[in-house]
Amino acid sequence: MSPLRIALLGFGTVGSSVVHRLTRADTVRDLVLTGIFDRRADVKRERHAELRDVVWTSRIEDVLASDADVIVEAVGGLDPASGWIRDALLAGKSVVTANKQVIASDGEHLLRLAARQGRQLRFEAAIGGAMPIVRAVGDGLAGDRLIRIVAILNGTTNAVLSRMDATGCSMDAAIRDAQRRGYAEQDPRLDLDGDDARAKLAILCGLAFGLRVTPAEIAARSAATVTIADFAAARRESATIRQLAFASYAAAESTLTAWVASVAVPRHGIFGRTTGPQNAALITGVHAGEIGVSGAGAGGDATAVAIISDLLAIARDRAAIVPAPSLVRPRRILGFDASSDVRLETSDFLLAEAV
Amino acid sequence: MSPLRIALLGFGTVGSSVVHRLTRADTVRDLVLTGIFDRRADVKRERHAELRDVVWTSRIEDVLASDADVIVEAVGGLDPASGWIRDALLAGKSVVTANKQVIASDGEHLLRLAARQGRQLRFEAAIGGAMPIVRAVGDGLAGDRLIRIVAILNGTTNAVLSRMDATGCSMDAAIRDAQRRGYAEQDPRLDLDGDDARAKLAILCGLAFGLRVTPAEIAARSAATVTIADFAAARRESATIRQLAFASYAAAESTLTAWVASVAVPRHGIFGRTTGPQNAALITGVHAGEIGVSGAGAGGDATAVAIISDLLAIARDRAAIVPAPSLVRPRRILGFDASSDVRLETSDFLLAEAV
Repeated sequence: MSPLRIALLGFGTVGSSVVHRLTRADTVRDLVLTGIFDRRADVKRERHAELRDVVWTSRIEDVLASDADVIVEAVGGLDPASGWIRDALLAGKSVVTANKQVIASDGEHLLRLAARQGRQLRFEAAIGGAMPIVRAVGDGLAGDRLIRIVAILNGTTNAVLSRMDATGCSMDAAIRDAQRRGYAEQDPRLDLDGDDARAKLAILCGLAFGLRVTPAEIAARSAATVTIADFAAARRESATIRQLAFASYAAAESTLTAWVASVAVPRHGIFGRTTGPQNAALITGVHAGEIGVSGAGAGGDATAVAIISDLLAIARDRAAIVPAPSLVRPRRILGFDASSDVRLETSDFLLAEAV
Repeated sequence: MSPLRIALLGFGTVGSSVVHRLTRADTVRDLVLTGIFDRRADVKRERHAELRDVVWTSRIEDVLASDADVIVEAVGGLDPASGWIRDALLAGKSVVTANKQVIASDGEHLLRLAARQGRQLRFEAAIGGAMPIVRAVGDGLAGDRLIRIVAILNGTTNAVLSRMDATGCSMDAAIRDAQRRGYAEQDPRLDLDGDDARAKLAILCGLAFGLRVTPAEIAARSAATVTIADFAAARRESATIRQLAFASYAAAESTLTAWVASVAVPRHGIFGRTTGPQNAALITGVHAGEIGVSGAGAGGDATAVAIISDLLAIARDRAAIVPAPSLVRPRRILGFDASSDVRLETSDFLLAEAV
């Protein structure tokens, strides 16, 4: 079998980690990088003499017309990435993406297009970095009837909150620290406000419950207002504060409850123990009970692991059938509980008052 | 597409949970139970009037000659289960099994046969009950280079040890309690001595490291000798005692270190917090760092979730290519550290002296 030919869109943090894995000593069998698209291809090509066998371009048409079998989309953002993924599928290529905005917004449509084209659209990297939650929910637990997901899905916010807790510093100082370590963007508002976690939670609602939900329909309270005093209060109750994404589905009433907020969690539970840019999730099924997953939620290398895993799945079986999802709309979508006091009963954790 | 026709071998704890899922109110689309093989089919058929549309038999030949697409093997034990799986594959059927002995002993050979036959052999249920560790290691983290696995893989032993810790009772009393709750067999020695965990760890060494290892090559110390005094000593160091399965692989030296033993673990780490028949695993990759997975490790319903997930994967893509593993022998297999003092450095846990 000839190796899988891969063209990359976007030579940024994630893209360069993928290139590193595909071209350095620790390369991956059956995968070969043939092309790189980047808006600044000219400049970047000069800096990377070791990639001289790869075709560099800043014209997307070149990639679509190339002999690549798979496109890795690491551009980010909804537009133009979503259109490029569509065009790649129409050009007969499979696509691997780390783009939660595209999947949350256009995933259903694009997955249907991929199925029609007999190609694959895989997106393990869109949620939880290297933590294999897309496979766990969509495949490994497909045999259960899932009813709830509670998760830390945003590594940036988790790094900021756990830093404040550990050092007693201000949020501004914690944000600067996260930026220095490469865990936070220049403007971390999309992370703190919950937009990033809402997009990921919307995708998980599709995978876990078969529901069509947009990120905007998920209630959110920003973590930007959390103070050191909040941590002190939480500590007195053996708790700490984390940004959680929550979704539960009552199928009989077709009612989804979903929100993202910073809440108090027990210090020694799975969420309290999740520090830095880690992610963690508890997935509850009627038959299996609670299943936990955790791992590096951000960073180029961790995200590249998820992308390479998806590429290997395609290399293993290029004609694999990945059926298009058939999603339904829930009759009702609820946000925070009317009491504003968010409590859950589980074996593992208890959410005290929402901060 | 016509539904997937399923014949079950073995109407015991796991088998009856599978039947329940396939035939009751909460049934699964695309899956239909057509046959049940059981040595006492005559007696059991009488007791289950609701299964009158299913063909019952106590002759394995009837199942092999039937029009079932997939055989679910829930008989357990190496012999005759392994031969029946081989015969089913030769008869052109795919196979889903919960049988760790068969996969640990004959998995490589049977997976190669399945690939030759263009059929699938899936075994998510063989390790960790509903915890999707087979997919996590073999698929979701395939894009990393894995170097270590530390895990609680035996739900029975974990239920016994965590009961002793929680109540201060003797091991005999904890075993009787586990038997009453259905977590322990009449004779729990294979669980306490580590034989069950060794078989599962041998399978994981194949999936994670590409190594051919037999359960007998993995060092083991029995948990049967753990006393209440051991727990008291551990508690003084904020620790508790769990049976862990450990494997690390140094590829450059082709050296595997692997063992199963009861060791002291921090009370608040992932393993200390794993109680009752739960399982948990930390999988370490060079690129992604530590990935955690946890969940119900035993019980018919949890195991049935893994089996149904495998059946759905086959229903989704009956022609899916599952390549045969290509395993190598490690040059050296080490057991416990020469110092007999087992220590690991990780962010999450620290193993004190082996108990």
